[in-house]
Amino acid sequence: MPAHLTHQHCWSSLPSPSVREAASMYSTAVAIFLVILVAALQSSEPPESSFPYHIPLDPEGILELSWNISYVQDIIHFQLQVQGPRAGVLFGMSDRGEMENADLIVLWTDGNRSYFADAWSDQKGQIHLDAQQDYQLLQVQRTSDGLSLLFKRPFVTCDPKDYLIEDDTVHLVYGILEKPFQSLEAINTSSLNTGLQRVQLLKSEVPTPAMPADVQTIEIQAPDILIPDNETTYWCYVFVLPPDFSEHRRHIIKYEAIVTEGNEALVHHMEVFQCSAEFESIPQYDGFCGSKMEPDRLNYCRHVLAAWALGAKAFYYPEEAGVAFGGVGSSRYLRLEVHYHNPWNIRGRHDSSGIRLYYTDSLRKFNAGIMELGLVYTPVMAIPPQETAFVLTGYCTDKCTMMALPPSGIHIFASQLHTHLTGRKVVTVLARNGQEMKVVNRDNHYSPYFQDIRMLKKIVSVFPGDVLITSCTYNTEDRKLATVGGFGILEEMCVNYVHYYPQTELELCKSAVNDGYLQKYFRQVNSFNNEEVCTCPQASVPEQFTSVPWNSYNRDMLKALYRFAPISMHCNKTSGVSFQGEWNPQPLPEITSTLKEPGPNCPAQQAPSHTNPTVVSAAGAEAES
Amino acid sequence: MPAHLTHQHCWSSLPSPSVREAASMYSTAVAIFLVILVAALQSSEPPESSFPYHIPLDPEGILELSWNISYVQDIIHFQLQVQGPRAGVLFGMSDRGEMENADLIVLWTDGNRSYFADAWSDQKGQIHLDAQQDYQLLQVQRTSDGLSLLFKRPFVTCDPKDYLIEDDTVHLVYGILEKPFQSLEAINTSSLNTGLQRVQLLKSEVPTPAMPADVQTIEIQAPDILIPDNETTYWCYVFVLPPDFSEHRRHIIKYEAIVTEGNEALVHHMEVFQCSAEFESIPQYDGFCGSKMEPDRLNYCRHVLAAWALGAKAFYYPEEAGVAFGGVGSSRYLRLEVHYHNPWNIRGRHDSSGIRLYYTDSLRKFNAGIMELGLVYTPVMAIPPQETAFVLTGYCTDKCTMMALPPSGIHIFASQLHTHLTGRKVVTVLARNGQEMKVVNRDNHYSPYFQDIRMLKKIVSVFPGDVLITSCTYNTEDRKLATVGGFGILEEMCVNYVHYYPQTELELCKSAVNDGYLQKYFRQVNSFNNEEVCTCPQASVPEQFTSVPWNSYNRDMLKALYRFAPISMHCNKTSGVSFQGEWNPQPLPEITSTLKEPGPNCPAQQAPSHTNPTVVSAAGAEAES
Repeated sequence: MPAHLTHQHCWSSLPSPSVREAASMYSTAVAIFLVILVAALQSSEPPESSFPYHIPLDPEGILELSWNISYVQDIIHFQLQVQGPRAGVLFGMSDRGEMENADLIVLWTDGNRSYFADAWSDQKGQIHLDAQQDYQLLQVQRTSDGLSLLFKRPFVTCDPKDYLIEDDTVHLVYGILEKPFQSLEAINTSSLNTGLQRVQLLKSEVPTPAMPADVQTIEIQAPDILIPDNETTYWCYVFVLPPDFSEHRRHIIKYEAIVTEGNEALVHHMEVFQCSAEFESIPQYDGFCGSKMEPDRLNYCRHVLAAWALGAKAFYYPEEAGVAFGGVGSSRYLRLEVHYHNPWNIRGRHDSSGIRLYYTDSLRKFNAGIMELGLVYTPVMAIPPQETAFVLTGYCTDKCTMMALPPSGIHIFASQLHTHLTGRKVVTVLARNGQEMKVVNRDNHYSPYFQDIRMLKKIVSVFPGDVLITSCTYNTEDRKLATVGGFGILEEMCVNYVHYYPQTELELCKSAVNDGYLQKYFRQVNSFNNEEVCTCPQASVPEQFTSVPWNSYNRDMLKALYRFAPISMHCNKTSGVSFQGEWNPQPLPEITSTLKEPGPNCPAQQAPSHTNPTVVSAAGAEAES
Repeated sequence: MPAHLTHQHCWSSLPSPSVREAASMYSTAVAIFLVILVAALQSSEPPESSFPYHIPLDPEGILELSWNISYVQDIIHFQLQVQGPRAGVLFGMSDRGEMENADLIVLWTDGNRSYFADAWSDQKGQIHLDAQQDYQLLQVQRTSDGLSLLFKRPFVTCDPKDYLIEDDTVHLVYGILEKPFQSLEAINTSSLNTGLQRVQLLKSEVPTPAMPADVQTIEIQAPDILIPDNETTYWCYVFVLPPDFSEHRRHIIKYEAIVTEGNEALVHHMEVFQCSAEFESIPQYDGFCGSKMEPDRLNYCRHVLAAWALGAKAFYYPEEAGVAFGGVGSSRYLRLEVHYHNPWNIRGRHDSSGIRLYYTDSLRKFNAGIMELGLVYTPVMAIPPQETAFVLTGYCTDKCTMMALPPSGIHIFASQLHTHLTGRKVVTVLARNGQEMKVVNRDNHYSPYFQDIRMLKKIVSVFPGDVLITSCTYNTEDRKLATVGGFGILEEMCVNYVHYYPQTELELCKSAVNDGYLQKYFRQVNSFNNEEVCTCPQASVPEQFTSVPWNSYNRDMLKALYRFAPISMHCNKTSGVSFQGEWNPQPLPEITSTLKEPGPNCPAQQAPSHTNPTVVSAAGAEAES
């Protein structure tokens, strides 16, 4: 949908203020702002016509964002389309989607003129002009049914008020202005209709491998579901592959989402899981996930075949690898899980969204595999309540990679990070000879509500003897009791599902603290607090954690324990059996040099940029005279 | 000693290289550097003729630094004088006086031309040109016996390679170039004669109070000492005030150092202590401090009357306060302590340095007092070995200030920080209602070898109910056993002697961890490490600390203990008796909001400055043609 520059209208439909008011506002505007008629002046810059990425910002699809990325210039071009007559719009990014302390662009009108500015909101939500104007407006276009903005911004601006755009999750925020404001400072986000949308802006743009001539597709779609009018619905549907899929093995080489038209803003994410081959059959099911009606056997449909989240495009496997699919020992039963996000409780929408798998009979050189890194699902790894940034770390040790990986190594090309509700950051680092070498995947703005499979920008090769360290940061400010590790949604996980080739027997390379050392910790808690409480060993670990009085000493001691105590390793084959050897206790890997988290490279000297809003229409001013 | 711009000589006395070499060097110089004949061009800037501060940099006084401070422009002007013919000189600042990672100016010659540059040394000591040239050369002068440089630099340059000049201790470094270097990059500090000198560059410049007409002086000087040819000598001398000093009270209102001419580079610091009045007399002594010959009673001469360190000027008391001196109940015995620093083992120097006290019979409105903040001298506060930055904190609690301070508060005008050998940073912060309000005194480059009394730039008033928190950071990398608190030089202290008025009964407001909680810690260490070791309670605390196996868990637990455990308060009167009330255990003060350590305010936008060395003499170039 190419956007062409049209004649500039005064796009505000609100009545003009009196001439006197307008004159006063005008002189204020001139005094404060250097008037630049950018839309006219900059029309020589050709509009960006190619936006490979699209995402609706609000649940009704009133705002739609499209963007493209230039990795040569480190710049993003954004196209923001707003439906219907609006006084203005506000769009930007913030740490975790809050409207306070956000990096924003604002298009507003004083009822007379319209302005565009790079702005920021303070901790009370009040908007201020940025000292440095880094969002550059390229075009404002008024169409019959709304408004379209074209603007660009570098990934890194070196303005402390700006969001640093990195590879990880970005929390986009938006607000709709329904009336004029005398000035930018008069706007407070708390008085607006606002919302957030999570997306990975800086997607990996590895070249798309060519599809073979014999490529075939199969669509795993839910059958005409009436989307419930609840904010959150996880819908589960069992899909059975045709019998001939058991005949021979194929390779899945690509998949993509099929989203029912009109529901783009409601379908939040989808995953296809393959069921365990140990069951001859899996009962049919088409209903809420986790409902009492759901057959228990669906718990054995956990092997991820495909995962898609809002804003993601088609997922291509590297040209030398594909996911083994079909044939002997491969279940024909798949579970499709669709997450509907319907915060405005829209009713009556029917949906048949799903995922299209592309597969081929011409097997590629390597099978692709998925390996689980991080923490074992066990309550011994726990987070005290009221923590803002508690870190748990799981290891894949040199001993395990030495035993399980081929001498030529494995090549990780994609990664899906996973925690439950309190996860805020996840990172996996590769270490060799005690030194951290590189980041496999890092998300400093991780959200459990946005778990997509991400292609890595560069393939990471892991060799025997390497160590993979996965750390998750949790926020338990709203919890009253300790949060222990486990499968439950109120328990926690710390996992990185890495997609790699060639497939090995190693399916799970995770750790947890050695239980004996945890029991020493509980004895220390008892002895230090000469107890009313009892974290007695006959109790279960979750009960023991529940009885810890969480003063600063017991918190610090738990951190110290996790930093010090030997671990129990799970170095397991696909069959669930561990590789041969002693795995508990194992020494904690020793890391002598750590990677610095790279900050933006901001030189002290920088070319000054203009620090004034842009007047986007002179029509109002003309009306004055 | 005003420096006048004279005709520019080629100040290098070394032979010129061949014309061909010179031509090659010349073209290199032109290619790399923009040639600016600064000394000639900038002669219009008047030389700074007033340098209130002077310090010899090396023990022979070959290099002498003078400087002045402009708190309006936040700029220091430096005058560096170098005696004798030298190929060049290097001067600058680094974190703790090391020649690596230093911020430097370099004046060097390639045998032909001479250059001046703002530079930095890397972690191997190699010199590089700074991308941003912040030291500005104003004048180079060749006199009959050496060289004189005049240059200036802002306190804050926002160049990451530059030292941030703050109020605290600055480690100046210098090096002498004895031969030409083809380029700046050819210089490595490890091949030079180098050294360091500690100084407070940014001294407080509060206006000097007028002296009353009846001001009198008394000189406390050592009698003609032959300075020993050891690197470090602490000389102790007992001085007896004339009998009439017992007759009535005076006020000391000023003091200053008297340094024997020629020994300016050897006399490192001096202190005058008053002895306890409980002894009728103190034996005469004139010898090494701490020697076996020293009478034990000198241990009772610990009340600081005056302290001076290299680079410090006269110390003036605020005009409304003076130190009570003489009269009934005041000892006539003083101990003068002189620290000679003679690293080059110079022999045969005689010295009669000392301190001149200015006093008056016209008593001022208030007596000034000294209060000790920080940690009690007790082994319960200990630092594990091999720590690079272990922090111990002492408190002066609200309960104690509530009991001891007048409703109108006290006013701190000066501060002397004190630790033993492993101290690296000291800070005292004032907190009110659980919130840190302001820094009383902070030294992030503290050195136990440089303990002067510093005037505060702003008087800090402390009211009943306020809390004073003193934290010291220690480096025990070179220790094999724990370092416990105590009086010994290998034990540690954490003290801030604050000078204030009006004098109160409160002499000591310090804390230590409650011993019962420390014993719980030792029990935990035992239980966790199911012991070969025994940190048994029948052992002394230093013995218990000695037997702790210092793994990361026991280190972290000790930190956690000090952050959590109740304290034992010493809220003591001058008599050594504590104020009435329960002082052990006391709750640790709760601090809900802490002060951010203010970084330099470096805007993202900055005017670019030239990034080339300055050619300081054209004489060599003329020789080529």
